[in-house]
Amino acid sequence: MKASNFFISTLKEAPADAEVVSHKLMMRAGMIKRLGAGIYNYMPMGLRVIRKVENIVREEMNRAGAVELLMPVVQPAELWQETGRFDKMGPELLRVKDRHDRDFIIQPTSEEVVTDIARQELRSYKQLPKNFYHIQTKFRDERRPRFGVMRGREFTMKDAYSFDRDKEAAGRSYENMYAAYCKIFDRLGLQYRAVAADTGAIGGDRSHEFQVIADTGEDAIIYCPTSDYAANIELAEAVALLASRAGATAALAKTPTPGKATCADVAELLQLPLAQTVKSLVLATDETDDKGIITKSTVWLLLVRGDHDLNEVKAGKLEGFKGGFRFATVPEIIEHFGTKPGYLGPIGLKKPVKIVADRTVANMADFVCGANEVDFHYTGVNWGRDLPEPDFVADIRNVVAGDPSPDGKGVLAIQRGIEVGHVFYLGTKYSAAMKANFLDEAGKPQPMEMGCYGIGVTRILGAAIEQNHDERGIVWPDAIAPFTVVVCPIGMDRSEEVKTAATKLYEELLALGIDVLLDDRGERPGAMFADWELIGVPHRVVLSDRGLKEGTVEYQGRRDAEATKLAVADVVGHLKGKLKP
Amino acid sequence: MKASNFFISTLKEAPADAEVVSHKLMMRAGMIKRLGAGIYNYMPMGLRVIRKVENIVREEMNRAGAVELLMPVVQPAELWQETGRFDKMGPELLRVKDRHDRDFIIQPTSEEVVTDIARQELRSYKQLPKNFYHIQTKFRDERRPRFGVMRGREFTMKDAYSFDRDKEAAGRSYENMYAAYCKIFDRLGLQYRAVAADTGAIGGDRSHEFQVIADTGEDAIIYCPTSDYAANIELAEAVALLASRAGATAALAKTPTPGKATCADVAELLQLPLAQTVKSLVLATDETDDKGIITKSTVWLLLVRGDHDLNEVKAGKLEGFKGGFRFATVPEIIEHFGTKPGYLGPIGLKKPVKIVADRTVANMADFVCGANEVDFHYTGVNWGRDLPEPDFVADIRNVVAGDPSPDGKGVLAIQRGIEVGHVFYLGTKYSAAMKANFLDEAGKPQPMEMGCYGIGVTRILGAAIEQNHDERGIVWPDAIAPFTVVVCPIGMDRSEEVKTAATKLYEELLALGIDVLLDDRGERPGAMFADWELIGVPHRVVLSDRGLKEGTVEYQGRRDAEATKLAVADVVGHLKGKLKP
Repeated sequence: MKASNFFISTLKEAPADAEVVSHKLMMRAGMIKRLGAGIYNYMPMGLRVIRKVENIVREEMNRAGAVELLMPVVQPAELWQETGRFDKMGPELLRVKDRHDRDFIIQPTSEEVVTDIARQELRSYKQLPKNFYHIQTKFRDERRPRFGVMRGREFTMKDAYSFDRDKEAAGRSYENMYAAYCKIFDRLGLQYRAVAADTGAIGGDRSHEFQVIADTGEDAIIYCPTSDYAANIELAEAVALLASRAGATAALAKTPTPGKATCADVAELLQLPLAQTVKSLVLATDETDDKGIITKSTVWLLLVRGDHDLNEVKAGKLEGFKGGFRFATVPEIIEHFGTKPGYLGPIGLKKPVKIVADRTVANMADFVCGANEVDFHYTGVNWGRDLPEPDFVADIRNVVAGDPSPDGKGVLAIQRGIEVGHVFYLGTKYSAAMKANFLDEAGKPQPMEMGCYGIGVTRILGAAIEQNHDERGIVWPDAIAPFTVVVCPIGMDRSEEVKTAATKLYEELLALGIDVLLDDRGERPGAMFADWELIGVPHRVVLSDRGLKEGTVEYQGRRDAEATKLAVADVVGHLKGKLKP
Repeated sequence: MKASNFFISTLKEAPADAEVVSHKLMMRAGMIKRLGAGIYNYMPMGLRVIRKVENIVREEMNRAGAVELLMPVVQPAELWQETGRFDKMGPELLRVKDRHDRDFIIQPTSEEVVTDIARQELRSYKQLPKNFYHIQTKFRDERRPRFGVMRGREFTMKDAYSFDRDKEAAGRSYENMYAAYCKIFDRLGLQYRAVAADTGAIGGDRSHEFQVIADTGEDAIIYCPTSDYAANIELAEAVALLASRAGATAALAKTPTPGKATCADVAELLQLPLAQTVKSLVLATDETDDKGIITKSTVWLLLVRGDHDLNEVKAGKLEGFKGGFRFATVPEIIEHFGTKPGYLGPIGLKKPVKIVADRTVANMADFVCGANEVDFHYTGVNWGRDLPEPDFVADIRNVVAGDPSPDGKGVLAIQRGIEVGHVFYLGTKYSAAMKANFLDEAGKPQPMEMGCYGIGVTRILGAAIEQNHDERGIVWPDAIAPFTVVVCPIGMDRSEEVKTAATKLYEELLALGIDVLLDDRGERPGAMFADWELIGVPHRVVLSDRGLKEGTVEYQGRRDAEATKLAVADVVGHLKGKLKP
C-alpha cells in the first residue's frame, strides 16, 4: 500500500473524553472515530487491524473444525421469547419494532438463533458433534459505554456454538475450543492467561476466560506462578490461612472504640494486627409467593477477616442463597443486632441470625469484633467459649496475593487482565428451552449439549494496546499491526535516488508477501516518524540521500531504542529474519 | 475442505413461499435459511459465495484507489435529521430508541455518516479526491420482502462514496468507479449491462445501473444491439415514430363504441390498427401554501398512442410537474371532461386543461380518441383542424422494442435485468446540507462534490442464479462458486484404492491453491451427484473402483452433458486448463 492511496489521519492530542490509554491512542492514531456514545467508525487504519484479528480467529476456528455461517443482526423476538430472555434481559438488549409493529432485537449474542438452526438441521446423533460460528456485528446498550472499543455498544464478536450428544462429547468440544483459543491468542502475539471462571447456575467447571494481561485491566486474575492454577477473582478458591484453631489466651473484654467503625481503625486504635479483627456483613434472603411478594426474610451474618473482602459470587453459592440475596436494611439490622452498622458482631444478638464464618475466621482465636453497641468492640473473642460455633463455615472471601494456591503448589499472585475471550459449557439450558433435540441410536429424542465460545474481536484492539504501548504510541504485535513494515523515504520529492530506492524496496517486500506501506506523503522526517510510532508499525526502514550515498539504510524495530544501519543489499534479508514467525 | 468438516444440507423440495427460481434453489441447496420475513441466515454454503463476491469487490475497489473503512449499523438519528431524511424517509427506515430514549436508525445506506466523516477529516483540496467504502450489513424494512435475497430486509451492501473538489473531478471519480464496476462484474463471471438511469432532482447524466441479464429480472433494460446505447426504461428516450405529420384524409366523426372503454377494444371494434388510437391520461398538479394545504390544482391531459404506455418518470420532468403529480380524481375529471374515465379525449372539454402530447401523438393524423361522452369515440381526428395544437409536446412514453435507437444507430431491443449495482453522481446534495466543506487554494470553503456507488453483495447471489441455472440446480460461475472443484469418490468406505486416490487428488489440488471439496460423506453416487448439481459446483471429478482399475477418473463440467474419461495422471492438468482465467 502506498500512503497516497490510503488514509492516514493522526492527532497530536486525544479528545478529552478518552479515559484510558488504548482509547486515547486509537483516537490519536486515527484507528477509530466516535459517531455516538459507544459507537465508532472503524477508520481504514483500525479496520486493517480488525481484519487481521478476524483472519487469525477464522483460520483457527476452521482448523478446529468449526463451520462459519452468518446470522442476522436484526432478529425476531419470538425466539428470544422462547428462552425467556426477551423479557428477562434488561435495557442492554436493544429492542425494535418493524413497520408491522412486530418485535425484533438487535443481536447482543446468538444462542437463540443458532439453537433454532440446530433444532431444524441437526436431527440425528450422526450429525453431531457440530460447531457453528460467525463473526458479526453485535449491539449491547451499555448503561455507561466507555473506554473506546473496550466497552462499546456496537462491536464485532466471534461467537461459536457447539452441539453434542452428551456431556462427555461436550467436554471434548470444550477442550477443542480451549485449545483453539490458545492458538489464536498465541498467534495474535498477546500475553494472556486462560483463567477458570464461575459457571453460575449451569454448574460444573467448564468456564474459562481468556484474559489479556495489562496493568490497566478491569479484572483481577489469580494465578500461581509455580503451578498452572489460574482463576478469576470470583472463582479463585481461598483456603483457610490458619490450619487449625489455636487455644484461647485472652479474656473476652468489651473495649471502648469511640468513633472507630472500621476494622482498620479499630486495629490501629488497639495496636493489634488487622488480621486479628473480624468484619461483620449482614445479608438477607427472601422467600416469595407465586406473585413475587415477599413472605419471609432471613437475616445472615457473614464474617470475614478484617483484611479480607467478601466475595459476592461465592456468597451466592451458599445453601439458602441460591434464589438470590441482598444486603440487609438498616431496620432489619437494628431489629437483629440492636444497633446500627459499624459496631456489629456475632455476640449478644437481639434476635437470632444465621452465622457464616469464612474458613479463616472459623480458625481464629482471641479475635476482635463489634460488640453490637455503638463505640464498643469485643477483644479476646473465642469460638465455643464466648459464642457458639458458626452455623456454617465456607469460602466467602476474595483471595489476596500471598494466599496459598488451592492446588497446594505455591503461593497465589494477582495480575490485572482484560477479558477478550470466554469458553463456556451451556449444558441443555437453551436446547431444552427451545426443544432442540436429536434422535439417538435408539431413535429417542435427546436435548443437545451445548457450549458457547466468544471472542471480542474489536475489544482485542484495545486490550492489545493496553498491553503494548509506550510514551510514543502503540506497539502492535507483528501479526495484527495495520502494516508490518513501513518504508520511510526522506525527501522523496527532491531526490530521484531516494525515490527509486524506496520504490524498489517497497516492491521487493510486496513481492515477498510482506504487508508493507510506502510513506510517499512527503512529510518531514520528524512528523513522519512520530506518525508511525504513534500508529505502532513494528518495523521501519528509513532511506535518505546521505545514507544511500554510503550505501546504507536505517532499520528500527518499534521497541528498539536506536536505529541500525544496514547495507542496502542486506535490508530485505534483515527484515525477513525479523519477520520469521 | 472435507465434507465431513463442513455442513451440507440439501432439500428435495423448496418451501412453498419461495416464488422465484433463485430463492428456491438457494433454499434447496442449503445456502440460506429463513429466520423471518426478508431475514435470512447465510448458511456455510451460501456464506462461501458471499465471501468470494466480497473479495472480488474489495480487490477491485482497492485497486481503483478506494479506501475501506467500516461504519456502524446503528447510527444516531441526529445526522439523518441534518439531511432531513430521518423525517422524509418512510417506514423503510428502521427507527429505534436506546435506553435513554434517544433516536437511532439501522443503516439502510451511509451517506450521512460518511459525509460526517468527510467534513471532519477532509479539510483541504490537497486531500481530494478521496473515496471511502465499506461492506456492511444493511436493513430496509421493505413493505413486502420477497424473492429470498433479491428483496430481503437485511442484506449486505458495498457502498462507496467519493469526495471531489469540483464537478470535473467528480466526473473522473465517477468514470473510475464505472470502470471498477465493469471489472468487478467481469470477474464475477456474470452477463451484465451498464445502463443509463434517471438522475432525478440531481440532474446531469451520471447515473448508471449495473444490471445482471436474466429473463426473470424485474427491470426492463433498453439497449441497441448495433450500438452501445443502453438505458433503463425510466430513462430510455422514445423518439417520434412519425417523422412528420401527414395531411388529414378523413372527416371528424363521432362514432358509437358502446362498452369499449379501452383503445384495444375500440381498435378491434372499428377494425383499425391500435397505432391509430390515442390514449388519454388525466393527471393533476397541486400548489400548496407554507402549511402544505392545497391552494390550487391544475388538471393535465397526457396523450400517448394506444399501443404505448405512459412513463411516469418522464412525466415527472414536465414543466410544472417538478413538485410532484398525481392521477386526477373522478370529480376533477367530470368537472373538466363532463364524463367519467373510459371515453375521454382532447375535444369538447367542459373546462380547459393543459394538453401534453407524446412526440408520436403530435405527428399523428386521422386518429381516434374518446369523445368525452359515454360509449362514443371520435375518428378522423386531426390536430389544428379539429382541435388546437397541443400545449406541450414531450417524450412521455416508455420505449418499446423496435423503436429507433435515440443515437440513430439502430433499433432498440428490450431485455430483463436485475439491478445489482448503481453508480450515481450526488453533486452537493449531502455536502451542502451537512456543511461538508473543504478549503480551496484560495482558502475559501467549498462544498465537496460527491458520488455514491453501491453493490448489492447478497443480491448478486440471487441474480447469478437467476442467470445461471438449469433443471438440476445452480450453475455457479467459477469465480463465485462455493467450491470450484468437488472430488466425489464412490465407495470410499469400501475401497482403500478409491480412498487413497481421492485423498491424493484432493491434496494435490489443495496444494495448487484450488478451492476443492472432498465429498467424504459416504453418500451413494446418485444422491451425491444430485447434491453437487443442485449446489452448482462447476467442476466435478468422480473416482470409482472400476475406473481406477483401468487407470481413469471421470471429469464433468457442470454445463457438460456427459462426463469425460481421463487418465488418472492427466486429471490435475485437465483441471488446471479448465480453471485458467
